[in-house]
Amino acid sequence: MSTAIDTSQGLKVLDIDELRSRVAKEVAATITSQAVLINNVNKDLGILTESLSAMMSGGKRLRPAFAYWGFRAAGGQDSDEILKAATALEFLQACALIHDDVMDESDTRRGNPSSHRQFETLHKQNGWLGDSKQFGIGGAILLGDLCLSWADELLMKSGFETSRLMNAKNLYDVMRTELLAGQYLDLLEQAKSNASIENILQVVTYKSAKYTIERPLHMGALLAGADQKTLKTLSDYGLPLGIAFQLRDDILGVFGDEKITGKPAGDDLREGKRTVLVATALSRTTGAEHDLLNLSLGNKNLTSQTISDLQSILTNSGAVDEVEQMIEKNRTTALQAIEADYLEEKAKFVLANLAVAATERTF
Amino acid sequence: MSTAIDTSQGLKVLDIDELRSRVAKEVAATITSQAVLINNVNKDLGILTESLSAMMSGGKRLRPAFAYWGFRAAGGQDSDEILKAATALEFLQACALIHDDVMDESDTRRGNPSSHRQFETLHKQNGWLGDSKQFGIGGAILLGDLCLSWADELLMKSGFETSRLMNAKNLYDVMRTELLAGQYLDLLEQAKSNASIENILQVVTYKSAKYTIERPLHMGALLAGADQKTLKTLSDYGLPLGIAFQLRDDILGVFGDEKITGKPAGDDLREGKRTVLVATALSRTTGAEHDLLNLSLGNKNLTSQTISDLQSILTNSGAVDEVEQMIEKNRTTALQAIEADYLEEKAKFVLANLAVAATERTF
Repeated sequence: MSTAIDTSQGLKVLDIDELRSRVAKEVAATITSQAVLINNVNKDLGILTESLSAMMSGGKRLRPAFAYWGFRAAGGQDSDEILKAATALEFLQACALIHDDVMDESDTRRGNPSSHRQFETLHKQNGWLGDSKQFGIGGAILLGDLCLSWADELLMKSGFETSRLMNAKNLYDVMRTELLAGQYLDLLEQAKSNASIENILQVVTYKSAKYTIERPLHMGALLAGADQKTLKTLSDYGLPLGIAFQLRDDILGVFGDEKITGKPAGDDLREGKRTVLVATALSRTTGAEHDLLNLSLGNKNLTSQTISDLQSILTNSGAVDEVEQMIEKNRTTALQAIEADYLEEKAKFVLANLAVAATERTF
Repeated sequence: MSTAIDTSQGLKVLDIDELRSRVAKEVAATITSQAVLINNVNKDLGILTESLSAMMSGGKRLRPAFAYWGFRAAGGQDSDEILKAATALEFLQACALIHDDVMDESDTRRGNPSSHRQFETLHKQNGWLGDSKQFGIGGAILLGDLCLSWADELLMKSGFETSRLMNAKNLYDVMRTELLAGQYLDLLEQAKSNASIENILQVVTYKSAKYTIERPLHMGALLAGADQKTLKTLSDYGLPLGIAFQLRDDILGVFGDEKITGKPAGDDLREGKRTVLVATALSRTTGAEHDLLNLSLGNKNLTSQTISDLQSILTNSGAVDEVEQMIEKNRTTALQAIEADYLEEKAKFVLANLAVAATERTF
C-alpha cells in the first residue's frame, strides 16, 4: 500500500492523545454538572453518576476524534464549541455500550464489571428486596437513557450558531436512528442462524461505518459549514475505514489481549456474534471443524482450551487472512480518498493517522 | 369543594377529545416518517415501527394536553408548531412505558402484550437462536431508545423560533433527567423494604407531579413566551394536581377495571409497588392483615381471591378514604391556583376540566 500522506511520524500519538484527554475532561465536566441535578432529586442517586464516571473514564474516544477532525478538515478552528459537540458522541456511545451489555448479558466492559452487573452487585450487597439481576437491568437501562439524553443536550448547548447547529442536529438525528435500527438488525441477525456475509456487512455499515466514522465526520464538517464535495470526500474515507475498523474489532474480539480490549479473549464467540470473520470461517470449513465452530457460538461456558481450538480453526481455514486482506483493501481506499487537496492539511494528516490507529493490529 | 370555574359542562369532553385525536394523528405521522429511515436500513425492521404504532394508538395523551394548554394559558395561539412540540412528550412517555415494562417484567400494556413480550413472542414463533426472553428485552430497550430519540427530534423540528425553542429545550432537558432519576429512585424505593411515605411522595413529585404536569405546562408556556408569574401559577396548579393524579393512579392500580386501565386489577400489588396507598395501609394495620399485605407485595402469583382480600384490607383500614381525602385536598388547591385572572379564559376552563378528568374515580 502506498499513500501520499506519511503516517509514520511521532506527532500522531501526540495529536490523538491530546484530543482524547480534552474529551475526557469534557466528559467529566458534563457528568459533574448533571450530578447536581441528579443529587437534587435525591442524594441516594449519586451512584448513577459515579458509576458512569468510572465507565466513561476509559475508551478510545474515536467518535469525538472523527467529529473534531471532520470539523478541522472542513476548515473549522479549534474551539470549546467543537469539543463539546464532539463529546456529545461519547455519551451516545456510552448509552449504546450500557444497553448493549444488558442485551448481550455481558459481564465486563473496559476491564470492569458492566453497568448492569454493578447495579446487580449493589442490590445483592445491600440485601434489598426483589431480584438482584432484574434490579441490575433496570439501573442500567435508566443509566443508558440518561446518557442518550445528555448527548443531545450537550450538542445543543455546544454554543454554535443556530443554522449550523440545526444542520448538525438533523444529521445527529439520522445517525442516532440508524445506530438503534442497526443494533436491532444486529440482534436479528444473531438470532437467525443463516445470517449471510452480505447481511452482516449491512449491520457493519450502520453500526460501525456510518455510526462510528462517517456520521461523526459529517457532523463535525457541518458545524464548520462544509459543502457537499467535502462531505462526499469524508464519506469516501469514512465508509471503507469503518468497515476496516469493525473487521479489526471482530478479530480482536476473538484473538485480542484482555489487557488491551477489556474483554476476555474469545468473548465474541461466547456471545455468539455472527461476524464477517466467523461467517467467512464457516464458509471455508466442513465436517468437525465447521460443526464445532457452529455449535460453540453463543455457548457461555466455552473453556479456554476450546477458545484456543476455535482460534486455530479461524486461522487455519484462511478466514483470518481473508479478513486481514479486506481490512488492508478498505484502509487503502480510505487513505486515498483523504488526499483531496481541498481538505485542511493538518486534519488530513491526523485523519490518515487515525485510519492507521483504528485498524492496526494490537495482538 | 367550591371553585369559580364550572367544570360540569359538556364542552369538556369535546376539547379534551379533540386534542387527543390531533395528537394521535401527529404521533402516526411521526412514526410514518421515521419508518422510511428505518426501512431504509433494512426491510425486516418494519416490526419496530408497527409495534410502536399499535402501542401508541392508545393512552390518555395527558402530557401533550398539559403542554398544549400551558401554551394556550400563556396566550399562545393554536398552531401546528405547538401540536408537534406537545406530541414530543408522548414519545418521551412511550420510552418511559416501554422501558418500565422491561424493568417491572410487566406482561401487558394498554390491554395488549407489553413491548418486550411482543418481541419475545416474535422470537419464539420464528424459532430463532438464543433466549426468547433476552431477545424481547433487547428489542424493547432499542424501541424505547428510538422513542427517546424521536421525542427531542420532534420538539426541535416543531418550527418555533430559536430563542423560545431553546428555552423549551432547556426545560425539556431538566424534565427528562428528572424523570429518569425519579424512575431510578422508584426502583430503589421498591427494593428497600422500609420506604417511608415521605420517600414515596418524593418519587411521586418527580415521576408524576413534575414530569406529567408541571414540566409539560411550563414547556408549553415557555413556547408562548410566558413570564415568571405565569410559570409560578402553573406550578401552583400542576404540582398538587400531579400528586392527586398519581394517588388516583395508585387506587386504580389496585381497584381499577382492567377494561379501563388496560392492566388486571391488583397488578400494582403483584408488582410490589410501594405506593402511598399501600404505605398508608401498612401504617394503619397490625397483625395478620399487616403481615398479609406486606408478604403479598411483589408476589407474581397472587390469586384473585387474595387480591380481593387485600382490597378489603386497604378499604377497611381507612387507607383508601385517607388517600381519597388527599386527592380531594390537592385537587382543590390546584383548581384554586388556576383562577388567576392573567391566564387565558378558555385555557383556564380546559385546565380545570383536565384536573377533574385526571383525578376522577373510574371504578
